[in-house]
Amino acid sequence: MRAAELIELWRGDLRESLHCGHAVVCDARGVVEAWGQPAAVIFPRSSCKMIQALPLVESGAADAAGLGSRQLALACASHSGGRIHVEGVGRWLQALDLAESDLRCGCHMPRDRDENRRLTCSGESPCQLHNNCSGKHAGFLTLGRHLGAGPDYVDPDHPVQQAVKAAFEEVTAETSPGFGIDGCSAPNHACTLEGLGRAMAAFADPGADRRGQAMRRLVDAMRAHPELVAGEGRACTILMRATGGRVAAKTGAEAVFVAILPERGLGVALKIRDGATRAAEAAITALLVHLGALAPDDPAVSRHLPQPIRNWRGIATGEMRTAPGFPA
Amino acid sequence: MRAAELIELWRGDLRESLHCGHAVVCDARGVVEAWGQPAAVIFPRSSCKMIQALPLVESGAADAAGLGSRQLALACASHSGGRIHVEGVGRWLQALDLAESDLRCGCHMPRDRDENRRLTCSGESPCQLHNNCSGKHAGFLTLGRHLGAGPDYVDPDHPVQQAVKAAFEEVTAETSPGFGIDGCSAPNHACTLEGLGRAMAAFADPGADRRGQAMRRLVDAMRAHPELVAGEGRACTILMRATGGRVAAKTGAEAVFVAILPERGLGVALKIRDGATRAAEAAITALLVHLGALAPDDPAVSRHLPQPIRNWRGIATGEMRTAPGFPA
Repeated sequence: MRAAELIELWRGDLRESLHCGHAVVCDARGVVEAWGQPAAVIFPRSSCKMIQALPLVESGAADAAGLGSRQLALACASHSGGRIHVEGVGRWLQALDLAESDLRCGCHMPRDRDENRRLTCSGESPCQLHNNCSGKHAGFLTLGRHLGAGPDYVDPDHPVQQAVKAAFEEVTAETSPGFGIDGCSAPNHACTLEGLGRAMAAFADPGADRRGQAMRRLVDAMRAHPELVAGEGRACTILMRATGGRVAAKTGAEAVFVAILPERGLGVALKIRDGATRAAEAAITALLVHLGALAPDDPAVSRHLPQPIRNWRGIATGEMRTAPGFPA
Repeated sequence: MRAAELIELWRGDLRESLHCGHAVVCDARGVVEAWGQPAAVIFPRSSCKMIQALPLVESGAADAAGLGSRQLALACASHSGGRIHVEGVGRWLQALDLAESDLRCGCHMPRDRDENRRLTCSGESPCQLHNNCSGKHAGFLTLGRHLGAGPDYVDPDHPVQQAVKAAFEEVTAETSPGFGIDGCSAPNHACTLEGLGRAMAAFADPGADRRGQAMRRLVDAMRAHPELVAGEGRACTILMRATGGRVAAKTGAEAVFVAILPERGLGVALKIRDGATRAAEAAITALLVHLGALAPDDPAVSRHLPQPIRNWRGIATGEMRTAPGFPA
């Protein structure tokens, strides 16, 4: 994969580090603008959670379970495991007579500072509700019950994952070349960056059919609850708030980032080749400014780009900035 | 800078992420083996702390202050801020009638798990002794006092930093094109990767002169106290222990790593272009195996390379491995 230079880190007069990658801006017809290779095959990881949530809504499972926009936002989330996330998913499961032990996402310490400190200092272990993907898994469980399917919903052959795969291939308009197992144990299907961008454009400009309605509900849920999609201090939350709800943005592990711009009918997808989150956050910010969704002087922008690098005494020692030609 | 493909991350059948960079193996005469561009200009960051400690020893300041191998290891350390590090530097300063407030490195939370938890749960703030560079700064203070110089020892024009710069340019055999300010506020001089590798080869095969004696003392101190140079669970400590003290290894921020192999008179230096520590640790491990300093089946190797990537339920989802051709 031939990647473009996207994000640079400078110290003094020297470019100390460099992040290369691929980025596309798409509309309904395809790629509008690109850096690197639109044909690069990637794992979208958590950036495609709104796609993975489509069958939950389209099947009628979400309505049958009485899910509102908060639950749909959690289904699309890589959340910080704060109290609002843990309690939100916990209540959702409880209302369906399901339990934390029905989840298959595994446990990890939450990123949320207060909850992390609470667990650290009490010696309490994190549970599966703390997993950043617990909302997605609650969605899988809800769909699985609606379909009358068995408990092992992360099995690639399970009806839930088969429905997710079908939706994924339809919205990316590609046959996935294969899948990997994600950090949360669910299958994650590969696609081209262009396919992911096209899918985001479809979410930005959905039709009036059943799929379009599901897309609109999910995007609206994300934009209405930026704090549920990630958490305080996190890029997705900050960027969605800064755009005043005009953009839905979602990160994925190994430096994937997508954005959905309904007002312009555009979808954005990018992958930093080396997997660095710092660069993915900077690059998506640069693209949102480039597309007019964020003012260059918005505090959310200056948080990421050009971002002064400060040391432990607060001295500015360098800067993270876009590479020449990105965005064009 | 034209970088070589060094470290790959695979998930399922797809190469998900890729780290490029530069690496050299040098002997006293120069580059023996190289990947990427030996002429790439880099900031060595903390990887050159043994160079920055040369004037402390050569000037006689270390002996005048009665420093032993533990203090010299701390002077070369990017330590975890555990109790052994904090108390080690604290006692060193105290013996010289200096205080924590004389340091100019700033404060940050320690990486050491126990000390981090202690501070987090007590609400106590970290002090400058916790800074991973506090040993280097104690060395600067010791030299500054020996030279009768003023308190602002991180000023690039201060006699301490002038002595460091002179030593740096001599052992790299280059005129530094400039400096940046490091995370700890000290100047960090740029050099080529080849220059850094040559310097490490000089440490591996030191002469009988004053400089050579200082080099030998510093390398011996690092190898004798791997737990002081970094800390439990850290790559430098693990690799030095695994080589049974036959190698001194040192990490630097933004993915620099060096190694000194006295038995073979070789120095190694590498820089991952994107600044990813995970890749720098994997690459130095691969080179130590390549050079026969580590057995391929050593537990320290399998910790880094090929390293199975496991998810939150312990399932192997992929692998971190060397790119084809690295090491050749």
